[in-house]
Amino acid sequence: MEKLLFTPIEVLDHGFLRVVDYMGDDSAVVQAARVSYGRGTKKVSEDAGLIRYLMRHRHSTPFEMCEIKFHVKLPVFVARQWIRHRMASVNEYSARYSILDREFYLPAPEQIAAQSSSNRQGRSEALDPETGARVLDILRRDASQCYDDYETLLDPEGIGLARELARMNLTLNTYTQWYWKIDLHNLMHFLALRADPHAQYEIRVYAEKMIDVLKAWVPATAAAFEEYRLGAFLFSAGMLKVIRRRLAGETVTQENSGLTKREWAEMNAILEAQS
Amino acid sequence: MEKLLFTPIEVLDHGFLRVVDYMGDDSAVVQAARVSYGRGTKKVSEDAGLIRYLMRHRHSTPFEMCEIKFHVKLPVFVARQWIRHRMASVNEYSARYSILDREFYLPAPEQIAAQSSSNRQGRSEALDPETGARVLDILRRDASQCYDDYETLLDPEGIGLARELARMNLTLNTYTQWYWKIDLHNLMHFLALRADPHAQYEIRVYAEKMIDVLKAWVPATAAAFEEYRLGAFLFSAGMLKVIRRRLAGETVTQENSGLTKREWAEMNAILEAQS
Amino acid sequence: MEKLLFTPIEVLDHGFLRVVDYMGDDSAVVQAARVSYGRGTKKVSEDAGLIRYLMRHRHSTPFEMCEIKFHVKLPVFVARQWIRHRMASVNEYSARYSILDREFYLPAPEQIAAQSSSNRQGRSEALDPETGARVLDILRRDASQCYDDYETLLDPEGIGLARELARMNLTLNTYTQWYWKIDLHNLMHFLALRADPHAQYEIRVYAEKMIDVLKAWVPATAAAFEEYRLGAFLFSAGMLKVIRRRLAGETVTQENSGLTKREWAEMNAILEAQS
Amino acid sequence: MEKLLFTPIEVLDHGFLRVVDYMGDDSAVVQAARVSYGRGTKKVSEDAGLIRYLMRHRHSTPFEMCEIKFHVKLPVFVARQWIRHRMASVNEYSARYSILDREFYLPAPEQIAAQSSSNRQGRSEALDPETGARVLDILRRDASQCYDDYETLLDPEGIGLARELARMNLTLNTYTQWYWKIDLHNLMHFLALRADPHAQYEIRVYAEKMIDVLKAWVPATAAAFEEYRLGAFLFSAGMLKVIRRRLAGETVTQENSGLTKREWAEMNAILEAQS
Repeated sequence: MEKLLFTPIEVLDHGFLRVVDYMGDDSAVVQAARVSYGRGTKKVSEDAGLIRYLMRHRHSTPFEMCEIKFHVKLPVFVARQWIRHRMASVNEYSARYSILDREFYLPAPEQIAAQSSSNRQGRSEALDPETGARVLDILRRDASQCYDDYETLLDPEGIGLARELARMNLTLNTYTQWYWKIDLHNLMHFLALRADPHAQYEIRVYAEKMIDVLKAWVPATAAAFEEYRLGAFLFSAGMLKVIRRRLAGETVTQENSGLTKREWAEMNAILEAQS
Repeated sequence: MEKLLFTPIEVLDHGFLRVVDYMGDDSAVVQAARVSYGRGTKKVSEDAGLIRYLMRHRHSTPFEMCEIKFHVKLPVFVARQWIRHRMASVNEYSARYSILDREFYLPAPEQIAAQSSSNRQGRSEALDPETGARVLDILRRDASQCYDDYETLLDPEGIGLARELARMNLTLNTYTQWYWKIDLHNLMHFLALRADPHAQYEIRVYAEKMIDVLKAWVPATAAAFEEYRLGAFLFSAGMLKVIRRRLAGETVTQENSGLTKREWAEMNAILEAQS
Repeated sequence: MEKLLFTPIEVLDHGFLRVVDYMGDDSAVVQAARVSYGRGTKKVSEDAGLIRYLMRHRHSTPFEMCEIKFHVKLPVFVARQWIRHRMASVNEYSARYSILDREFYLPAPEQIAAQSSSNRQGRSEALDPETGARVLDILRRDASQCYDDYETLLDPEGIGLARELARMNLTLNTYTQWYWKIDLHNLMHFLALRADPHAQYEIRVYAEKMIDVLKAWVPATAAAFEEYRLGAFLFSAGMLKVIRRRLAGETVTQENSGLTKREWAEMNAILEAQS
Repeated sequence: MEKLLFTPIEVLDHGFLRVVDYMGDDSAVVQAARVSYGRGTKKVSEDAGLIRYLMRHRHSTPFEMCEIKFHVKLPVFVARQWIRHRMASVNEYSARYSILDREFYLPAPEQIAAQSSSNRQGRSEALDPETGARVLDILRRDASQCYDDYETLLDPEGIGLARELARMNLTLNTYTQWYWKIDLHNLMHFLALRADPHAQYEIRVYAEKMIDVLKAWVPATAAAFEEYRLGAFLFSAGMLKVIRRRLAGETVTQENSGLTKREWAEMNAILEAQS
């Protein structure tokens, strides 16, 4: 972890994240659990086992005892999703005080994808190279034009518009940056949602890099997180009934399962996955 | 208050806010205070007096017993400031799921102001009409161009880019909307910061409209809020010393005051204000 | 729900809870989801289906749009567990301001149980009636003695000790009361943890009564909560492997399962439950 | 600060607090402020000046970038006040899992004080030594009796009552302990309320010791905190009018001041204090 400290990890075309500071590690989680459970944990001789137990039973407070602070550079439209996680502290570069750099996100060709027809909030296959190139041209041209005019608006020798106003002319793929500080419990909650395949690619790549940081920082916690969160699946009451029937030898179909088509598909995707 | 319910209150050129629901009123604050202080409040016969007492002594929990929900339409760059207040619940129109309307904020001429030279985060006088018109032309042209291309990118018969990607081409003055729900204590904290003259005009106008709502909803609380927050001033330890010396008849100057020039100016602005 | 309003629901020997106010219902959840997903939800014609979808995919913010306020009377040692849920607003009867009543919790005979030997934080079978009676005698005698002395300490004609000091002589089964206000999302989080069979009986009974309130208040949400939370089970990555092997016809034992004995037992308890 | 680490600081008769870990210092506050204000802060050459500016203008987020974790031992009735501050992480010794020690708080003779007649939530002068001794006898006797019976109830060779039940027989002055982790902004909010002369003595002494820690940890922040919070006073709109009139040479009395008697007294206590 000390090696990771301060080192920028590249994300997207101009973004990065880097660990600026942290407090605590796996042993701080264990220490907090042991004060809670006092003499009661004498028998739990092994720390990793205790951490797995805490994760499995959703005893989340010991994980709050660790804290991490990142410096992140990210496009504004990603920042808008990210900030919805309220249990964190943020200091963002202010475009009221300062001038933003000429840097905007342009997707890599394989990420320029069509609207999904089945998932209203998702993307489908990549567009063909020619159409992709057209998309990039549009995004680049508009962002450049808007930034040029941002500079024109700001020019103290020219228009001299207030920074707090001029910024409204920028596009949502402009990069911003911030310090983001969060405790380990809330970080894992963020990661479980944002490293999920349904999360938008442009935030998911940040989450994935953070999971690498997690592994270096708190290896036992990261392993338990993968076992009981990332790799886990919540079976609803109705799904449990289906599992019980199938284990009892019955052939269950969607029609007689009591599940909706969507639930049936989601459950089977899990049961048929290669583990 | 019942009259206000659901009625849009116009803000900026295309924005609005409207009260969608609320819970509690001045009497809920009093009721909560009385359970806390139990028999102890028998003597405080008057509700408005109790509310003033709570506000003066920063007993904030009784104010948390009231809740209000707004529907707000606002430019994205305003939404970015607003969301920094974490103690609220938000459901925002999602540009991953849906297509944003062609609506963007263009400041009124008197708001097209120069960068302040004394205050790095503020604006100064309005620009001359000709320059102002030039600013508007730029803002309108870029936002229109970006929106036109947003539509081109989305067109299911044409490019068909995923909505979650196309939106990055929009400018920061595009309008969004959300439900925003908050308790009365946290609302007043928001209003104290955002109705402040140092807040950016484009968020301050929302705060000012909300203060009107506050007066209709919880008149006794709103009056106490004006007396002990909006109209109040925090004198630092050093400022208190100056006041004491002046009241004792001494002539105090900035040089012998122990205050910085800035503190001296801030204090005098308050002491010399017409009340 | 309107019928429930203000009506005390008895809990334990002297406790109660009653709904004092609320805001929103199932339709407020749906309304908030629809603003988020905008035109995207036109097809989701049925509200209950949308609520199930939100619950299954942990889209929690629409549930934050509803709010409820309870008046609760509860023993101090229960209040100490309860208050650990931070995402709520509380106004508690203050023993600095006022004098607590002579009311303390004494368990019903069937609740006077031995320490569990397998679960360090749980209780086992009820003690035999004779021992149970002895326990009650001790609890009653000590609480009474402490309360008598509390009165002696407070007596303004006698010692006249400050209330804020005298209260320290009371036992932890003394009843207190508070207003407790929480949004629907956080209420369900509270209920999932406190209605769990591992929760202490004395707080679980409050949670169970609140689930009855939930059913009257937001029936569609309550049904989804039972399906996807209360009746659901999170299978870890390792458990999913076992299920897949079993469904493929393999006989899996704890030894070759890769699960610990405890995990194995927890999983089988679910799979063998009568649904 | 490194010297303070892990060293118990004694508080009350059996309590303590000790710093177990921390993250950041004055320079982390400055670093966060500079990312927010970007190039805008080049001119603010001096860190202490920037910190004073942040504190004066209630720019609180940079202070959230520092974190501290305490191990605290404290009486249960103090813990009950303390836990009301929600913006912190807590792991408390659990009396469901473990057995509490025979340790309870007994006030020092000079703290055994009469109920205040003017302030319903406060204490007045110390009781005379004889009465004080009587109070101590009662407190000691009842706490001892309850603890003896707690042991009797728990005795695995005797009654063997579940720990989660037996604990209800303890008095509220029994000591508990916890890890308490909080960011610097929220710590100062806690300290401003709990180091206040109106706070109960038994929690104020913890706050005062923490202020010593603050001075060692973040000296520039601690100095600004004393200047702009602890030593500051909020003048209401009405009080400001009185000050202006007095500075203009007018003699103002309570009767013609527009202030209530209480406000008048509070304001004069500040204006007449020796600074």
